[in-house]
Amino acid sequence: MDGDAYGNLISSLAQENDRRIVLLVMDGLGDCDNGGGGTALQMARTPNFDGLSRESALGQHVPVAAAVTPGSGPGHLGLFGYDPLVYRVGRGVLSALGVEFPLTKRDVAARLNFCTVDRAGNVTDRRAGRISDAENRRALDKLRASVRAPKGVEVLFETEAEHRAVMVLRGEGLDDNVGDTDPQITGAPPLSATRPPHDRSRTAAAVADLIAQARAILSDEPKANMIVARGFARAPDWPTFAERFKLDPAAVAGYPMYRGVARLVGMPVAAQPTTAADVCAETVAALRKHTFVFAHFKYTDKTGEDGDVAGKVARIEEMDAALPALLAAAPDVLIVTGDHSTPPSIRGHSWHPVPLLMKAPFLRGGDGPRFEEARCRGGQIGTIPAREIIPLAMAHAGKLQKFGA
Amino acid sequence: MDGDAYGNLISSLAQENDRRIVLLVMDGLGDCDNGGGGTALQMARTPNFDGLSRESALGQHVPVAAAVTPGSGPGHLGLFGYDPLVYRVGRGVLSALGVEFPLTKRDVAARLNFCTVDRAGNVTDRRAGRISDAENRRALDKLRASVRAPKGVEVLFETEAEHRAVMVLRGEGLDDNVGDTDPQITGAPPLSATRPPHDRSRTAAAVADLIAQARAILSDEPKANMIVARGFARAPDWPTFAERFKLDPAAVAGYPMYRGVARLVGMPVAAQPTTAADVCAETVAALRKHTFVFAHFKYTDKTGEDGDVAGKVARIEEMDAALPALLAAAPDVLIVTGDHSTPPSIRGHSWHPVPLLMKAPFLRGGDGPRFEEARCRGGQIGTIPAREIIPLAMAHAGKLQKFGA
Repeated sequence: MDGDAYGNLISSLAQENDRRIVLLVMDGLGDCDNGGGGTALQMARTPNFDGLSRESALGQHVPVAAAVTPGSGPGHLGLFGYDPLVYRVGRGVLSALGVEFPLTKRDVAARLNFCTVDRAGNVTDRRAGRISDAENRRALDKLRASVRAPKGVEVLFETEAEHRAVMVLRGEGLDDNVGDTDPQITGAPPLSATRPPHDRSRTAAAVADLIAQARAILSDEPKANMIVARGFARAPDWPTFAERFKLDPAAVAGYPMYRGVARLVGMPVAAQPTTAADVCAETVAALRKHTFVFAHFKYTDKTGEDGDVAGKVARIEEMDAALPALLAAAPDVLIVTGDHSTPPSIRGHSWHPVPLLMKAPFLRGGDGPRFEEARCRGGQIGTIPAREIIPLAMAHAGKLQKFGA
Repeated sequence: MDGDAYGNLISSLAQENDRRIVLLVMDGLGDCDNGGGGTALQMARTPNFDGLSRESALGQHVPVAAAVTPGSGPGHLGLFGYDPLVYRVGRGVLSALGVEFPLTKRDVAARLNFCTVDRAGNVTDRRAGRISDAENRRALDKLRASVRAPKGVEVLFETEAEHRAVMVLRGEGLDDNVGDTDPQITGAPPLSATRPPHDRSRTAAAVADLIAQARAILSDEPKANMIVARGFARAPDWPTFAERFKLDPAAVAGYPMYRGVARLVGMPVAAQPTTAADVCAETVAALRKHTFVFAHFKYTDKTGEDGDVAGKVARIEEMDAALPALLAAAPDVLIVTGDHSTPPSIRGHSWHPVPLLMKAPFLRGGDGPRFEEARCRGGQIGTIPAREIIPLAMAHAGKLQKFGA
């Protein structure tokens, strides 16, 4: 792909063999020091990670770019070896991934919000009073039942939660040259999907037609009497992970968003566990059939988002306790890292570099004795962009040919 | 050159003075930990490198890109300050360098293999039974004697070893738009040099003619009864090292490949020593006439390729013992590094960052007390792309002007 010189280079050097690589993502793993108490990794009792770190290389990665906080989509794309600044995913596609909508190459997706408009058509509540998921589903059923699809276009809706939904237009030759209709303020009417420079787009005309129909269909609703759409985006047409790296991949992930990102790069889903023990067990099972397994553990992020330091520590210790089962399967290369940091003190994703551990053949000794931010910073891997992690694992697994004679 | 913004910047700032820089390349210097025993540099007794490291800056360099294992050509180009991803060398040119063939700008070079074909013309042995060097020379003499050169083209052959040789076409207006004729498998005939998209190339037509002639000329040979060619490449037309950096360079190298890469950037060869003592002595001699000397020591790579840890340690100690003679000449800047790592445990080149030492004025203290991978990782130079080494040495030698007023 243009602009991806490094990825293209690695792809040109990739060679197949039967060595196995595991990428264990502990979502939101990195932390700040929690007011002097140390990071969650530093506070946790992790005898198994400690032992592993003594025979592993340590380092840290930058998910997108210095000082940039990644969303889950870009965070995982970087880990999968797709530079998130080159492989961009539109808002609509991320929403579709979040509800695990099976996008095809003929689809254009948008994020849909139910909202409330007054008689003059001005938006009075951009979230339609935060309707319940059930109300959302009922209103979408109403749209599905009554909407007349524009010629040559199939229209699909999916509930996300509360006022949030996904709309997908499917057909040949659709484009994403469609104006956001969400005015992002109250007191103004929704914008036109066909305003310049979107005025010559067939897809924008279809969207304008659909939104006008929705206004009529929903007019008797007390709250959700209108929809606005934004972030129209085509499902990307990228080289698959298997093509790109000559690996046979599988995803082990309990949450829809992460399965969605995996599918975006053509990675099939092998299992959907959520606890650390199940994640490790399913990873071991998937390793029997695949040369690459992406394993996702959600709760280190969730506890960070909740501002729950003790919870984050406990979730790290949960994974530590589960680790021996994974180690017993002896993958040739084991990577443990996060897709970004989620410090409980921030209650959200952050820009901090993310701790990184790699157990592999041909190291320069082990960097332990602990797996935590300070030792990672001084480790032999150094501080690298996330997109270099998979290539590095491939090098250690003998999956990259020499460059030049 | 396009795509080489950094190199162009440095070139625009270069200024001449009489300070002298030595680049001592201990080929394949870096290592892994040899199963816990440590790297060869860690195991070696190196009192002279130890002393030098106490008054030097340490660091490590990445020859091509993260996770990428360089061949000798790209590895040295990086050290010479030519980004190997921008300054690409085709297979044919590398083969020509390997036998020190003096390429001109009118040349197109290809790697030639003798092979065996059956009566139907299908390849039965891609290496012609690995004929001896003597048989190779005899068969090439036969070709030289009988081949009728296509109009306006001179054809030159050079033995490499066993079944391997180099073919060079010389003439005005030749191109490298020529199909590989090596089918890379047995049981199939050689490919046509003029197949699309090579069908309109005058050079491809000349190659097809030559290969047809070779088939007839070699038909009575028991093993080497055919040739196949691949990697057609023009001799590159790059700025010379002297133009680029305003340095007066010389190469001191005992092996053809390294003299070849030096000549590729216009660096004349001053001497061809092989032992560490001779490399140092010839470097001292060359320093009397040149402001830059590239000195190459092969055996740290050769022992690594042989999987010989003790041998690699001994070769490092050999260079350590020779070092005082070089230090006595007091070059203004002395760089010691490798073109890549060659861990004996891998028995080949690797992707690992390469230890780097620079003795120079204007350091931030010395990084010793030893010259080995772990201290290099933590040294003041940090981890840098190979192409930054020459600019850094030039800065310390006062050979780079200020950028902006």
